[in-house]
Amino acid sequence: MSDYDRISIEMHDRLHGKLGVHSKVPLQTREDLSTAYTPGVAAVCHEIHQHPERVYDLTIKRNTVAIVSDGSAILGIGNLGAEAAIPVMEGKAVLFKEFADIDAFPICLATQDTDEIVHAVRMIAPVFGGINLEDISAPRCFEIEDRLVDLGIPVFHDDQHGTAIVVHAALLNALRVAGKDLGDCTIVFNGSGASAIACAKLILSAGEKGRHSRAGNVILCDSKGIVHRDRKDLNPYKAQLAEMTNHGNMSGSLADALRGADVFIGLSVANLLTQDMVRSMKKHPIILAMANPTPEIMPDLAHAAGAAVVGTGRSDFPNQINNVLAFPGTFRGALDSGARVINDEMKLAAAEALAAEVIEPSPERIIPAPLDKAVPNKIAAAVAEAARRTGVCR
Amino acid sequence: MSDYDRISIEMHDRLHGKLGVHSKVPLQTREDLSTAYTPGVAAVCHEIHQHPERVYDLTIKRNTVAIVSDGSAILGIGNLGAEAAIPVMEGKAVLFKEFADIDAFPICLATQDTDEIVHAVRMIAPVFGGINLEDISAPRCFEIEDRLVDLGIPVFHDDQHGTAIVVHAALLNALRVAGKDLGDCTIVFNGSGASAIACAKLILSAGEKGRHSRAGNVILCDSKGIVHRDRKDLNPYKAQLAEMTNHGNMSGSLADALRGADVFIGLSVANLLTQDMVRSMKKHPIILAMANPTPEIMPDLAHAAGAAVVGTGRSDFPNQINNVLAFPGTFRGALDSGARVINDEMKLAAAEALAAEVIEPSPERIIPAPLDKAVPNKIAAAVAEAARRTGVCR
Repeated sequence: MSDYDRISIEMHDRLHGKLGVHSKVPLQTREDLSTAYTPGVAAVCHEIHQHPERVYDLTIKRNTVAIVSDGSAILGIGNLGAEAAIPVMEGKAVLFKEFADIDAFPICLATQDTDEIVHAVRMIAPVFGGINLEDISAPRCFEIEDRLVDLGIPVFHDDQHGTAIVVHAALLNALRVAGKDLGDCTIVFNGSGASAIACAKLILSAGEKGRHSRAGNVILCDSKGIVHRDRKDLNPYKAQLAEMTNHGNMSGSLADALRGADVFIGLSVANLLTQDMVRSMKKHPIILAMANPTPEIMPDLAHAAGAAVVGTGRSDFPNQINNVLAFPGTFRGALDSGARVINDEMKLAAAEALAAEVIEPSPERIIPAPLDKAVPNKIAAAVAEAARRTGVCR
Repeated sequence: MSDYDRISIEMHDRLHGKLGVHSKVPLQTREDLSTAYTPGVAAVCHEIHQHPERVYDLTIKRNTVAIVSDGSAILGIGNLGAEAAIPVMEGKAVLFKEFADIDAFPICLATQDTDEIVHAVRMIAPVFGGINLEDISAPRCFEIEDRLVDLGIPVFHDDQHGTAIVVHAALLNALRVAGKDLGDCTIVFNGSGASAIACAKLILSAGEKGRHSRAGNVILCDSKGIVHRDRKDLNPYKAQLAEMTNHGNMSGSLADALRGADVFIGLSVANLLTQDMVRSMKKHPIILAMANPTPEIMPDLAHAAGAAVVGTGRSDFPNQINNVLAFPGTFRGALDSGARVINDEMKLAAAEALAAEVIEPSPERIIPAPLDKAVPNKIAAAVAEAARRTGVCR
């Protein structure tokens, strides 16, 4: 057990969790009780019943997000169930509060059935202004999010889209540092889970939305090698990606995919990217090696093999690519603008605003530090603007 | 619109609801992030996975209650739906915090289907240490609570049991003032909704649990008159009460029931108790007239007709019988003791502790004031003791 582990368990034990609920109103006199509760509150109920949109003015809904998990894919650990997910969801709520002043509350569901999760989220939605899905395993996470798109409040699976936003931001600045253009690049993903698929889709979307002349060539690899259209073992989500990526329908291994490629994006497992693979890439390759806690390749080895820029998920190396940079500001912008969804334009706006927070990108700095509290407001403004521009606000 | 209404709407509009979520941990440094969130939090997740009971030490569960409503019976107003219920549930959460330091969170459900409500509560249960059901219409509220008794955490329909506890406490002191013994009394309820049924059951339970030589004779009346065993129009819950009450299987009107009775308990509608009815009761009758906002009889009229003690739901008369006296301390005691349910012994202990807080009951004072903050701790201690004594703690 590491020091962090011991310190963390001790802290959780002492405080009994990390969140509290507090009242914003006084409750000292009978008048206070009559205003906050009965009889005065009845008029507030009537007002909402008669003018449903007033729920956003008169209740906590406008600033409240549910962090929903089934505990099926907790961090990198795996399926530990709903109760064991609570500390992560509390931590997420702490981050929401600290970085975006959003009141988030953990909802850990005693089910891992897709239909039941979708139904439970619909049932609890009235009090919430947004739903942050968290640590739900693929491919169920895709279907759950797809089926909730009509909920009327933003539903955002952070493991997918939070990661996609922050990776996209890091990529944009890394490309500047390496002197490459996204439209000309071959980008190879290793790992084709939820986060990799979302990252790939956001890169493709950047091309579709006219951010670049074209989106470049994206190639996904999983544990069986390159994802291509002739493979019979793909789930529907990988099969869809096979149609959208890998222009030449190349087959083979990760090493095959990397030969002559510009960018490696790892969302997979430790130490599987070799120096030889890095050397086989085009000049000045970009390596985003985000396996946790041990990256796909250690930064010193990647640099020694010629990498122009290296990012990881770790705080003890430069360029820590951490979701906390993305989700607080993204939700802040969505809530502030009254967005009913978080669409691709909003995600791209978030990524671009995040990238722009680094004035002069360098090999050691392609992304702001995770605790940079100026970031969320910038992202929020860009996301809100994109929401209004794309007409998704209530 | 009254002054309270205007002030209340203005306050809700200005504050956008009454609740906030806050962090109990610092988040200024990378070390803070590593302790509250990744990587340290993973050890906490493992600990809970391996030792499930540790969820009560390491998370917010031990002090967190869900206030669950479907908006079907909001206050005295009626069925306004989930969104319109939010201000009441927020107010309830404020009271939980203020009176018992419990972190309560509103869960307003987008369904009024019994099966769906039961299922939704089961789904969301992992993060909560207790469930407070609120403003769910009868008879569904009975079935919902019955079906959740095995949830493993206390499930408590406050409209029933909170009311029952506080009415029972008021009754105990009123009996002392009037010089009557519960075992000898005839107690007539008007109204046979959820709260009246729960009050009647708790009085009967007091007899069964040996608090009195017998429970006295309880008679329920509804809008069609006395509830008796030959009526064909009773729902299953009233039919069950007909078996347990009304020893002589009397039929007739409220006026018939009251002739020679000792106690009137009204949970019904304004102004239906006449002075003649009060005069027809046994000497020194007790009148608890809790219709809101206008009681079944005004206190001055009841006293003029011979009432020994009068209580209402109103703050502008003596003896305000208000749920806020009961539910915070009851949940505090249940959470503190690790109770898996809130059983009748615990409710009776709560009522008796509440009654005991009035040292010398008088006609003007049979119950503490609603904002008396000494009350919840006393109730909590009594409830926790009863939980341990009856062996319902985890």
